[in-house]
Amino acid sequence: MGELASGAALTVPVYRIKGNGTGPNVYIQANMHGAEVQGNAVIFQLLELLRDTQLKGDITLVPYANPVGCNHKNGEYTLGRFDPITGVNWNRMYHFDDSYIEQFAQQNHATDVEKIKHQFQQRMLQAIEQKLEHNQFGLTTGQRIAYQLQYMAHQADIVLDLHTGPISSKHLYCPEYAVESAKYFDIPHTILIPNSFAGAMDEATFCPWWTLTDAFAAQGRAVNFEKESFTVELGSQELIDLEVAKEDAKSILSYLRYKSVLTDEQYQPSNMTRYACWLKDYKAFYSPMGGMVDYLAEFGQPLPPGEPLARILRMDNYGDGDPLHYLTLDKTVIPILHFASASVNQGTELYKVFTEYFELQ
Amino acid sequence: MGELASGAALTVPVYRIKGNGTGPNVYIQANMHGAEVQGNAVIFQLLELLRDTQLKGDITLVPYANPVGCNHKNGEYTLGRFDPITGVNWNRMYHFDDSYIEQFAQQNHATDVEKIKHQFQQRMLQAIEQKLEHNQFGLTTGQRIAYQLQYMAHQADIVLDLHTGPISSKHLYCPEYAVESAKYFDIPHTILIPNSFAGAMDEATFCPWWTLTDAFAAQGRAVNFEKESFTVELGSQELIDLEVAKEDAKSILSYLRYKSVLTDEQYQPSNMTRYACWLKDYKAFYSPMGGMVDYLAEFGQPLPPGEPLARILRMDNYGDGDPLHYLTLDKTVIPILHFASASVNQGTELYKVFTEYFELQ
Amino acid sequence: MGELASGAALTVPVYRIKGNGTGPNVYIQANMHGAEVQGNAVIFQLLELLRDTQLKGDITLVPYANPVGCNHKNGEYTLGRFDPITGVNWNRMYHFDDSYIEQFAQQNHATDVEKIKHQFQQRMLQAIEQKLEHNQFGLTTGQRIAYQLQYMAHQADIVLDLHTGPISSKHLYCPEYAVESAKYFDIPHTILIPNSFAGAMDEATFCPWWTLTDAFAAQGRAVNFEKESFTVELGSQELIDLEVAKEDAKSILSYLRYKSVLTDEQYQPSNMTRYACWLKDYKAFYSPMGGMVDYLAEFGQPLPPGEPLARILRMDNYGDGDPLHYLTLDKTVIPILHFASASVNQGTELYKVFTEYFELQ
Amino acid sequence: MGELASGAALTVPVYRIKGNGTGPNVYIQANMHGAEVQGNAVIFQLLELLRDTQLKGDITLVPYANPVGCNHKNGEYTLGRFDPITGVNWNRMYHFDDSYIEQFAQQNHATDVEKIKHQFQQRMLQAIEQKLEHNQFGLTTGQRIAYQLQYMAHQADIVLDLHTGPISSKHLYCPEYAVESAKYFDIPHTILIPNSFAGAMDEATFCPWWTLTDAFAAQGRAVNFEKESFTVELGSQELIDLEVAKEDAKSILSYLRYKSVLTDEQYQPSNMTRYACWLKDYKAFYSPMGGMVDYLAEFGQPLPPGEPLARILRMDNYGDGDPLHYLTLDKTVIPILHFASASVNQGTELYKVFTEYFELQ
Repeated sequence: MGELASGAALTVPVYRIKGNGTGPNVYIQANMHGAEVQGNAVIFQLLELLRDTQLKGDITLVPYANPVGCNHKNGEYTLGRFDPITGVNWNRMYHFDDSYIEQFAQQNHATDVEKIKHQFQQRMLQAIEQKLEHNQFGLTTGQRIAYQLQYMAHQADIVLDLHTGPISSKHLYCPEYAVESAKYFDIPHTILIPNSFAGAMDEATFCPWWTLTDAFAAQGRAVNFEKESFTVELGSQELIDLEVAKEDAKSILSYLRYKSVLTDEQYQPSNMTRYACWLKDYKAFYSPMGGMVDYLAEFGQPLPPGEPLARILRMDNYGDGDPLHYLTLDKTVIPILHFASASVNQGTELYKVFTEYFELQ
Repeated sequence: MGELASGAALTVPVYRIKGNGTGPNVYIQANMHGAEVQGNAVIFQLLELLRDTQLKGDITLVPYANPVGCNHKNGEYTLGRFDPITGVNWNRMYHFDDSYIEQFAQQNHATDVEKIKHQFQQRMLQAIEQKLEHNQFGLTTGQRIAYQLQYMAHQADIVLDLHTGPISSKHLYCPEYAVESAKYFDIPHTILIPNSFAGAMDEATFCPWWTLTDAFAAQGRAVNFEKESFTVELGSQELIDLEVAKEDAKSILSYLRYKSVLTDEQYQPSNMTRYACWLKDYKAFYSPMGGMVDYLAEFGQPLPPGEPLARILRMDNYGDGDPLHYLTLDKTVIPILHFASASVNQGTELYKVFTEYFELQ
Repeated sequence: MGELASGAALTVPVYRIKGNGTGPNVYIQANMHGAEVQGNAVIFQLLELLRDTQLKGDITLVPYANPVGCNHKNGEYTLGRFDPITGVNWNRMYHFDDSYIEQFAQQNHATDVEKIKHQFQQRMLQAIEQKLEHNQFGLTTGQRIAYQLQYMAHQADIVLDLHTGPISSKHLYCPEYAVESAKYFDIPHTILIPNSFAGAMDEATFCPWWTLTDAFAAQGRAVNFEKESFTVELGSQELIDLEVAKEDAKSILSYLRYKSVLTDEQYQPSNMTRYACWLKDYKAFYSPMGGMVDYLAEFGQPLPPGEPLARILRMDNYGDGDPLHYLTLDKTVIPILHFASASVNQGTELYKVFTEYFELQ
Repeated sequence: MGELASGAALTVPVYRIKGNGTGPNVYIQANMHGAEVQGNAVIFQLLELLRDTQLKGDITLVPYANPVGCNHKNGEYTLGRFDPITGVNWNRMYHFDDSYIEQFAQQNHATDVEKIKHQFQQRMLQAIEQKLEHNQFGLTTGQRIAYQLQYMAHQADIVLDLHTGPISSKHLYCPEYAVESAKYFDIPHTILIPNSFAGAMDEATFCPWWTLTDAFAAQGRAVNFEKESFTVELGSQELIDLEVAKEDAKSILSYLRYKSVLTDEQYQPSNMTRYACWLKDYKAFYSPMGGMVDYLAEFGQPLPPGEPLARILRMDNYGDGDPLHYLTLDKTVIPILHFASASVNQGTELYKVFTEYFELQ
């Protein structure tokens, strides 16, 4: 996957559990961002839980998906959200080229679905091979990693990319068409995302199929390729908790049972209120000033207008100005995550919140 | 411009030299990227050289344009190419919204040029004011800086953004339509860039006018707004050299004399071979392996096919593999810059080179 | 206190509350280490609580004591434990020169205590002035900050330096001779430190007086200068909690009431078990391997031999080795703090624990 | 040598060239500090030059001696001067315990020199083994690396630790007793260091023998163990130059020929002026202000009093204060190295210079 300056080769462990070939195949990876380690623990618990389970589809599990990011310590913490040299987010380097899809749909307007799936998948795999093959000017560190992971992911029907927020509640990025599936995860907050590629693994694996589906629809043909991809945000970064990981593993198995990857009836979704909002309504709130932050708003609870998200301490203003600044919004929001540090410069992203949210019924 | 966690306010010095109102106005900034300090020295020398010079247009000079980036030390070096929290390049956060331009051209198909210039400029300034005005969800650290700089730049006819490469020869980013002007800088390498906005200062200030020009052209009206913007790459980062800065200041004055900002005939372009290539042909070469790099190719000289750009030392392979790897290309290129460090991971951008280059006559 | 590369001056706010001159003077500083911000909130609450309180001694409060460290963000987190260029811990740069103390004691073998206190203090202040005065080769960034703080601290009788651990319980560094005072803080863990100078603020202010006391004792004269200094570890770094800060402020006022800085009887120590150990028995446990850490041991509770401190997840060993490693010790310890990140290299300090601990009665 | 968070094991290549057993054994390591890479190239050239040379003593060569430091990239640069978590300099973690030496000398006052050498060496190796052996509380990352290297170094008679300065001339740290040897390196500046252990490799290997020699001298017995250790500073960090490395390899072979490790007469010291100063006269000059630095003083040339070392640009002072500050000293010095970056905070170490220097004849 990569080589360090000393020549040390970085590799990635890949686990495959075989199914009996009657269900969809699954690809699950974790730790694409260095500090977001909890997904490795979830993969551990999935492997443990699946020891004695009969599977219908294959499951491929890739912990430590990005060995460069996950070894990028800086001071005490892990800094692996982006390539430290270029600043490019490790989860924005996957590949998607939509230029050939309309033509492909036209050429295959009468082809049967299974054959379309096979040919389209082959096309995507060849595109990745083409990228990975030695070309004279080379690949960036992140592209080399991303393309190799994507090559495995394209071979699956279901893709789960395990991430975490900074300090965060659990939430799920779900393509709009798969909203029904969101109810099978034990995750109370879902962000519904459109068919728009920004470089992430989930988009890189569902956008091609969604675009193809739309192209067939434009021809008047309704097809369903049964492909789903999610980014699963497991909570906070810089945290390993094997007990919580077991619950998250069960939540994933509940979804996989729903998708007929396995049949074990013990894996059922919990009864909970599930909120959702559209991606455009999932908003970042930036700090209007530098200072020390006492985060006040609880995750997952609707916060009424005027109630403080946080208060900012500015000791330099004590006695000569206002040492405490309360930060509020003028509409009800659901706080989902906040910044990882208690000290911020002006303009730091403090909170991300659901606005215009609704319940998934 | 910003506030640190301790509440310390960061400000930016702005110098204005008044002209007599008969020439174009000029905006020059430096050090948007933290390690690219030499532009500050060039601004120093411009101020010194212009002490006794009569100007036709006003010149506004902004050193230390990004005080967050320029104070972002990490270890010995300055790490200010991107926001250290988000990874977003500080020079990719300027604003351009082209959605209203076609309509604006239609509404003003008969308006005289000076009035168009005034109204269009006002429109751009209002858009920035709108962005800067307090909005509930706030601005990122970098947007706040970029918008304030852009507000000053939009008031000028000529914009020069002074940067440097990592370890680099001098080169110039020039919009394709202004190629004639490139010959008045004492800079031997010019990259010609199209009308495509990626967030940089030069694009943010020339794209609107270029797009407007094109919109009028589509109506059959040829207008020339006499607006030019350049990113001037002064050489290597982490270097202050006041003597070299004086030469670069004179090179800028040669260009400004050509544009009638001043009339002092002593500022003339030097006689030199000037190479150019299109942006699409300005290529990055990524390291095919991790290792220690002995950079071999000289900047500015055509490098024949098969001649090494660099050799990579891999002591772990000594006696058991090949400890020295020579990196070559199969066509003639002109090396323009290389990476700042002698040790690289696989996939690090090693060199940037002109391919398919040509001479500016 | 410092100047950044852009020329921006960094200053430190200083608050002074005057007493009526009948009690000891107090110096309290916070945030010498960048990420250890909670002390600023404690100073805020002290200022709030002391608004209407009559003081016998003066209290000087210095939040943001190290503006270089507290603005040293790196990625999301604050990295201010040491000078990022030299690696020297900001709290290891104070000054202490014991060379003149024995002679001073001999010269003053008959001087009365108040006069000794005055003269010795003057001597220490002059030594700091001497250091701060312009000398040709200059001072390091950290020395300039430390000496200015120390100049204020030397003017007090009681010095409190507010710190935090990484992820930590509350604990107190207390000079051995002041163990009685430790019972007046609401802090359940005390480390008793000897008369040995390693560069920290507490040592820099108590070692001179302790050494002087010992020098008089060697002459057969018992003197008590009533000088005490503590490093107060408030809990975890990267956390501002104003409610908890209020409790910590009250705990400090309980101690200050005991020392007759104020007389308000409401400030009394809580009833709690207080454990202590000698500095030599306060041990760091280093990770025997790289991996992802699930921290298990609770702070403040005696952990029996064989019970795990933590377990380390090594997914690369799953199916081929042992993916979970439990880390244990062979004696009972009290875990006090652990590392801030969930991923560690081999040799990272995982836990600090009390061994050979005892109860303070 | 270490394990990363992902479990990746870091190793170090070790090369051994056997001699015929009639000369002293040599240990050479490089790149203990991450950015100081040129020593790897020197080891490459030593291996090349020694391919056909008959050796009298064995030579052990260890490039990439610290794989944690040498892979510690941060942004573009390598930040490996100290452990990024603790701030401890990687070259301050070696072991030396002098407590048993006096007794050892007494016990062996009549033992013959070769036997003393053997027994004393065994004692040192056992001490390191003891440290490395699993102990319950573990070792820090840096101790584990340092002890393993030291274990190899103690088996040699001659130790060369290859380093570089930031931006630097070539210079040599030489124990005072070995000054004669300094004339056999092609290095124009030598710092003579006393018998004082601060944790570095050279000290860790010569201090024990020097202390033992002194202990015998105190008994009236003059012994010479023929042990020498040097830190060789090869020039600037972040630079690989294989041609310069070849010259440095020859300079090392000149010294080794002088010490009878080899007999090849082609390796002779160059004719050059060699300056030296005592460690106490090797002084750091700290920046009196923040700003952008134009380094002016040439390395290796005596700089008269009043001549500028550097000038600091402060654009914030232009027109309102002094934008250029010249930094001078009041005595003649020889500049040896300067800081790696062109922008500094107040208190940054700008230059290191020889004062009270003299010529080695």
